[in-house]
Amino acid sequence: MIERIAILGTGLLGTSVGLALRAAGYCGAITGWNRSSEQAKVALSMGAIDSIAPGALQAARESQVTLLAVPIYATLDFMEQLSGVLSPEQLVTDVGSTKAQIASAAGRVFNAPERAAFLPGHPMAGKERGGAAIADAGLFRGAVWLFTDDPSWRRSSFSAALVADWRKWVVAMGSRVIDLDAARHDELVAWVSHLPQFTATALSALLEEEVGAAPELKDVGGRALREMTRLGASPWSMWRDIALTNTEAVERALLALEQRLAYIRENLRTPELRDEFERANRFRRE
Amino acid sequence: MIERIAILGTGLLGTSVGLALRAAGYCGAITGWNRSSEQAKVALSMGAIDSIAPGALQAARESQVTLLAVPIYATLDFMEQLSGVLSPEQLVTDVGSTKAQIASAAGRVFNAPERAAFLPGHPMAGKERGGAAIADAGLFRGAVWLFTDDPSWRRSSFSAALVADWRKWVVAMGSRVIDLDAARHDELVAWVSHLPQFTATALSALLEEEVGAAPELKDVGGRALREMTRLGASPWSMWRDIALTNTEAVERALLALEQRLAYIRENLRTPELRDEFERANRFRRE
Repeated sequence: MIERIAILGTGLLGTSVGLALRAAGYCGAITGWNRSSEQAKVALSMGAIDSIAPGALQAARESQVTLLAVPIYATLDFMEQLSGVLSPEQLVTDVGSTKAQIASAAGRVFNAPERAAFLPGHPMAGKERGGAAIADAGLFRGAVWLFTDDPSWRRSSFSAALVADWRKWVVAMGSRVIDLDAARHDELVAWVSHLPQFTATALSALLEEEVGAAPELKDVGGRALREMTRLGASPWSMWRDIALTNTEAVERALLALEQRLAYIRENLRTPELRDEFERANRFRRE
Repeated sequence: MIERIAILGTGLLGTSVGLALRAAGYCGAITGWNRSSEQAKVALSMGAIDSIAPGALQAARESQVTLLAVPIYATLDFMEQLSGVLSPEQLVTDVGSTKAQIASAAGRVFNAPERAAFLPGHPMAGKERGGAAIADAGLFRGAVWLFTDDPSWRRSSFSAALVADWRKWVVAMGSRVIDLDAARHDELVAWVSHLPQFTATALSALLEEEVGAAPELKDVGGRALREMTRLGASPWSMWRDIALTNTEAVERALLALEQRLAYIRENLRTPELRDEFERANRFRRE
């Protein structure tokens, strides 16, 4: 039933959604908007969108579904602006990496009988670098797409049907949907997504100081080192809003890892090291 | 000129060396020995060795080159035993992950005019699990193979030629050779190899406790989490000797990473976080 989609933000994620929708057989219109028009032109040339919208709000007004694929604070700004101009027959969804503040805004300015619907979403897919040029129709294949919908929200039957249809498209793009409470979402991703990123950043920054001056030695670590530092290439601009909107959960996770590393450091010569390896082995067992 | 090689220890590394030698065109004899004969039979069936030696010392006595591909303490034990039974026209080399103790033993019981030669080696290649069955002729392709030879060691001209020939075979197996002092080697691998391993172990063990009870949530992290925890599958048996023979350098590296994580934790809301991401970015820049 969805026939008109607006993608606001045609970076890696927004452009990949456009490509994935087309690959999954979506035949409706997709208009795209990006703060820098260069990225929108790339998305257009790749076939991820079929028109460049002159303005973000107008594109949303003329679509049934608007996907916000911009950083978290930009998402929150758009939510405030869009809630005043959309109708109860329209749906907005997003791809933001933290959900508590977005879900709170969704309950405050959307999801009431006289307001448009908002479905907070978070595809667990990405790359260590951004940009439309590296977008990929298969980015969401095999990934988990988290939603933090709230059963107490009230929607028109039409927008409820748009929600159901969008969830079907997410599955059609190859993702597995998991529904979570927003607070639980933020706690979970602090462990399984944000902690791995900040760990790779810390390890890469440390190694830059220790062996960065001898670049021929960077290669010595081989595949293991490459994997453990790949996320070190992630730019701060992609992670700043995450650090600011999930600070407490990330702090807890980082402190727990610091303690874990200290425990290993203090037990390099004791049988406790074996127990720690066995716990780690269990995590990797299918 | 090498025509007879003994591989003592036909696990992942020993068996892969046999396969890689054959793939590189080595046509001489390769005999293999393993403490558990099952692994030797697997290596034989894969064509990595062409005979199973009834005993390790005898195999070494009858070969020009003996490759020790066993854990570090087993390597040190073999070195003591072999130094008494080999002649100055024979070479022993190894694949041990730490080199200070092995190089020290090599200077003490090898590399004198009346003794066999010993060339301490360390291919930076492996997998998170061991065993002959997952051996791979391409394991050393593109990898760095470290040697910690000591110019003060005295060898017969014949064993010096064996050393030169073994180094040519290492290059023929696809590796890039780097020579390092043994102490510098151990310091370097603490940073680029041991620290990444213990970090992955700590992260995996922590996540096992935090999300292990909800296995459907383990997948949520996607590729980033899989990469950052792949080494969590490494068994303690492969790492125990490393922890015991490079303790101080690993302790320093772990403490430095703990401090780095604490620095990030304390700066999630400050511009210092940007600087840390930029340092990490530099490490990943080619």
